[in-house]
Amino acid sequence: MARIALGVSYDGGPWQGWQTQPHGRTVQDTLETALGHFLGAPVGTVCAGRTDTGVHAVQQVVHLDTPLERPEQAWVRGVNAHLPASIAVRWARPVADDFHARFSARSRAYVYLLLDDPVRSPLWAGRAGWSFRPLDVEAMRTGARHLLGEQDFSSFRSSQCQAASPVRTMHELDIARRGRMVVFTLRANAFLHHMVRNIVGALVYVGQGRQPADWMGALLAERNRSKAAPTFSPDGLYLTAVGYPAGHGLPDTDATDEVRLGV
Amino acid sequence: MARIALGVSYDGGPWQGWQTQPHGRTVQDTLETALGHFLGAPVGTVCAGRTDTGVHAVQQVVHLDTPLERPEQAWVRGVNAHLPASIAVRWARPVADDFHARFSARSRAYVYLLLDDPVRSPLWAGRAGWSFRPLDVEAMRTGARHLLGEQDFSSFRSSQCQAASPVRTMHELDIARRGRMVVFTLRANAFLHHMVRNIVGALVYVGQGRQPADWMGALLAERNRSKAAPTFSPDGLYLTAVGYPAGHGLPDTDATDEVRLGV
Repeated sequence: MARIALGVSYDGGPWQGWQTQPHGRTVQDTLETALGHFLGAPVGTVCAGRTDTGVHAVQQVVHLDTPLERPEQAWVRGVNAHLPASIAVRWARPVADDFHARFSARSRAYVYLLLDDPVRSPLWAGRAGWSFRPLDVEAMRTGARHLLGEQDFSSFRSSQCQAASPVRTMHELDIARRGRMVVFTLRANAFLHHMVRNIVGALVYVGQGRQPADWMGALLAERNRSKAAPTFSPDGLYLTAVGYPAGHGLPDTDATDEVRLGV
Repeated sequence: MARIALGVSYDGGPWQGWQTQPHGRTVQDTLETALGHFLGAPVGTVCAGRTDTGVHAVQQVVHLDTPLERPEQAWVRGVNAHLPASIAVRWARPVADDFHARFSARSRAYVYLLLDDPVRSPLWAGRAGWSFRPLDVEAMRTGARHLLGEQDFSSFRSSQCQAASPVRTMHELDIARRGRMVVFTLRANAFLHHMVRNIVGALVYVGQGRQPADWMGALLAERNRSKAAPTFSPDGLYLTAVGYPAGHGLPDTDATDEVRLGV
């Protein structure tokens, strides 16, 4: 039995999220079917971050176990030949048995792209959130500072979140403008269910002037989801990096700047 | 009767091009249906550049004649309410009767986005062309210089092109790299059918080292389409600007930099 790690990229638009469902169109089911064709045998996968319906991934990390040997390059071309245009394997690497895509991960990065434009944009439909009210990036940056460091993120956690603890450590929460696009970058050890979309929803309230910047701190202190803004659209959310200890020998595949810069 | 000019943006992916077809899903048919709902009466439209299946537009310009008066802002929200996510009206402006979206236009700009990456990219599927062989941008820039100025573009013209003359004036043909994206910008008084996609196809041959840079000049001199490279994919092609004489009073709506920079 050998363990293989894969870097996987997908457009979340056509899919009902990552996780397998009995009658669903999911990324996991589609990837496992393609892997089954490539290997000639059924195989299960484990991913680093289970994305929701409509959420994109540029660098999802997945592992699987198989007794079948294939050359490293064959994985990428061979599996991609069985995948639709909206999903692709970007790299493959043999890893030791103690590597686990989810439990070995030490950090995750997400980028949220948000169009600040009075009129909706067909070429960003499904690929970016949208605010038709103008956004004050400086106010959002001020508000975002309240969320840095180790915090109880109960106010930004979905009611369906199954995590044992609501405490996470936010390493980075950057907000920058690229033309009419507002780009949010979030890095944490891990994220709760809907955490990024709930944080972006609250920051948009601040950016639109519906709440002052310090409301972010007050909201965090409440530890109560019912006080917060609505969960923002999945359209602009991209999983861009999963960080592992260097010893696992994975390729350096942080796609955060790629999505920030739109390349 | 009043004449109205509209700026229209669309994702070409779901559509069989601009031009109306008896049983087709076209942008023109869909826009005219939406305008009909908004105005409460059927209306025809004329566009600046009839894009092919799969080709995108960020700033298509359209005109129409109607006896019905509507406030300028109502056009954008009112028509967009009847349009799918892949098409939007971005602005509307009353114009004089001597304005014609196609015949008054003095220049057009297109951007072609081409991913230079060994692996295909799900998040750019349908939105960018793809070369899995690495591209030499400097060689393509050298080759592109042969196409500047007034030229007979017969070698880059589709066999179905109905233009009376193959002579066009190329004002700009710029090629730049933005990370793994190669960005082509073309400005001319007008373009022949498939001209941009045929030029990009030939430049990709140069960029991949399959032809020397000066082959572009030799190809142009041939005035023979059969010597050229295949027509490149529509996926990466965006109509970004249509230029009119200032006297028509249209808004300044050049979206070329927007697409170049990915915002």
